[in-house]
Amino acid sequence: MPNRSRARTTLVDVAHASQVSRQTVSNVLNNPQRVSPATLDRVQAEITRLDFRPNRAARSLRRQRANAIGFQVQSASDRGFASLTDPFLAALARSAQALDAQVITFVAEHEDILDTYDKLLSSQVVDGFVLAHTHRDDPRAAWLREQQVPFVSFGQIWDDPSATSWVDVDGRAGTAAAVAHLREKGYGRIAWLGWPGGSAVGDDRRAGWLQACAGLRQSPARLSSETVQNTLAVAGAAGRLLDGLADGDAVVCVSDVVALGVSMALAERGLRPGRDIGVIGFDDGDVARAFDLSTVSQPLPDIADLLVKMLEQADQPTHGTLLTPAVIQRASTVRSAPLPAVLRSPITQSVSRRTRATATRPRR
Amino acid sequence: MPNRSRARTTLVDVAHASQVSRQTVSNVLNNPQRVSPATLDRVQAEITRLDFRPNRAARSLRRQRANAIGFQVQSASDRGFASLTDPFLAALARSAQALDAQVITFVAEHEDILDTYDKLLSSQVVDGFVLAHTHRDDPRAAWLREQQVPFVSFGQIWDDPSATSWVDVDGRAGTAAAVAHLREKGYGRIAWLGWPGGSAVGDDRRAGWLQACAGLRQSPARLSSETVQNTLAVAGAAGRLLDGLADGDAVVCVSDVVALGVSMALAERGLRPGRDIGVIGFDDGDVARAFDLSTVSQPLPDIADLLVKMLEQADQPTHGTLLTPAVIQRASTVRSAPLPAVLRSPITQSVSRRTRATATRPRR
Repeated sequence: MPNRSRARTTLVDVAHASQVSRQTVSNVLNNPQRVSPATLDRVQAEITRLDFRPNRAARSLRRQRANAIGFQVQSASDRGFASLTDPFLAALARSAQALDAQVITFVAEHEDILDTYDKLLSSQVVDGFVLAHTHRDDPRAAWLREQQVPFVSFGQIWDDPSATSWVDVDGRAGTAAAVAHLREKGYGRIAWLGWPGGSAVGDDRRAGWLQACAGLRQSPARLSSETVQNTLAVAGAAGRLLDGLADGDAVVCVSDVVALGVSMALAERGLRPGRDIGVIGFDDGDVARAFDLSTVSQPLPDIADLLVKMLEQADQPTHGTLLTPAVIQRASTVRSAPLPAVLRSPITQSVSRRTRATATRPRR
Repeated sequence: MPNRSRARTTLVDVAHASQVSRQTVSNVLNNPQRVSPATLDRVQAEITRLDFRPNRAARSLRRQRANAIGFQVQSASDRGFASLTDPFLAALARSAQALDAQVITFVAEHEDILDTYDKLLSSQVVDGFVLAHTHRDDPRAAWLREQQVPFVSFGQIWDDPSATSWVDVDGRAGTAAAVAHLREKGYGRIAWLGWPGGSAVGDDRRAGWLQACAGLRQSPARLSSETVQNTLAVAGAAGRLLDGLADGDAVVCVSDVVALGVSMALAERGLRPGRDIGVIGFDDGDVARAFDLSTVSQPLPDIADLLVKMLEQADQPTHGTLLTPAVIQRASTVRSAPLPAVLRSPITQSVSRRTRATATRPRR
């Protein structure tokens, strides 16, 4: 439950104190003729007692709609590197604009998270929310359902996917497609570098790789490793995984950031993604484009369009839409990609040649 | 000028057609008693002829304020890698929330950029704007001034800094501080890797390095190179610059992304930032934290707070605030930083040792 110790009284506070619904408080403010005289008196007494000032509420409630969608962005301290939230927000803004709606961006501290949502709702600044960064035990979905607030999410609400409306990308199908792409490109053994078990998204993506291993009759043993989503940590974990691989093998990574860490670990050994070891990420975020990494693409414009339309139809039964992502090929899965001219210095070449002889083992 | 061919008529269209100001149209809608009968007739006739529907306008104008700030985010195709706009937006949202205001995010295509601003204004969704990504010949500032719309910018409007209100970071002081930091840490020659000349921000930052060279009696010749803001291009340009440097020298970079490119070029040679060559970036964006890069910090929370307050006081004379940025020390400017245990594999060590002998020259 949100922290109720804040200074400003909200519509929800009045509803709680009067033991009526939010809608009833809203009716008291905007359509008093719809409320029984006894309830009207009780709610008005609480409004006075709690010094509730409706702010934008009155105006928006009269119109029924703020025509705005709330979207929480990560605060500076919570920001991951190269988060997909940033390009997703641009896609969401575009989709909303196409329907003459606005996206209101906000931050919420951990301890005040529901309080922040509550405040936006009770002041009627937004009609509903698009959630991202959903995770197990995410308190937002249950609370928003309880409040009967329209919301949809980019990513399933894993605790109970059928209870809410969401759009997600089929992680399992995505990594299976990545394995198929690598085999088609001539790579040998296909390893996996994922997040530690327990993350719903990470486990789903790993399942696609495992399934593909079975199809390839490749034993997953010693071909799988895990790392947290931190570039420096990834480089270490990738190094240990690479010790078990040979020239021409490949690594499917749970994310673009992990794929970048693998590329860095390869560079430390004088090896190059694509030519020596195939590397593919997941997300097609900014980092994949910046580092010319092959990846599995989350189609953000389609996802945003679907979510905004779902939110417009929030009175419909909940449903989830699972999109099948596509492999995007870049340099990191091309064995014969030429070295960019800018990197072709004599020193680089000699280092690469010597290091390759040390770092790789004969192919099986 | 914005494209006028769009379907939906705006308040500005009515103003143009009636040859009155936006304020007069707004008065016709909300305070008709303030308008002369002749003008009232003329504007009302144009409202009918153009089929103008005020939408949210009427409601917000009555209240005077939407209590919302518009902020343009880069569309997916325009997004740079690790742009500072993303963490800045989080800071801006926090600063606005502290004043019970909202940040409305939107995207704008190049050809329709002013049209998008116009639409947000004429539908009274926002009271004003915070601009970022300002650049020479940016059409937005001049147009917003012409429309007498409140706006402030993160970054000077370089065409005429005194005509608008802005908060910026003193790039020249920042790079001068970076040079001083590197000398204090014991690095020898201090090189520069910047953007091609002509970018106001890049030229300003380079000037600080040049000025510091004079103080150090270090000739800037052959110690300066340039590159576009693209990680792969940077690695090439950095490689050529590194050919002229020796063990214990350092590179001041125009941005964190450029500093990352230098780190990658070092890795290609088996060298490590900090231990072998000092590397410092500029911005303290996500990329600096992810790669443990020393940098010059842009204090985003302070910048956002100042901008929101300036926007609240948009009736005051315009003024610019130049903040002095601070050096943030991380691993890339520590000569004795131990290699993280995760990277201490036998292969990495032997490659590094051999490569260093090849790649570096004796110190002067």
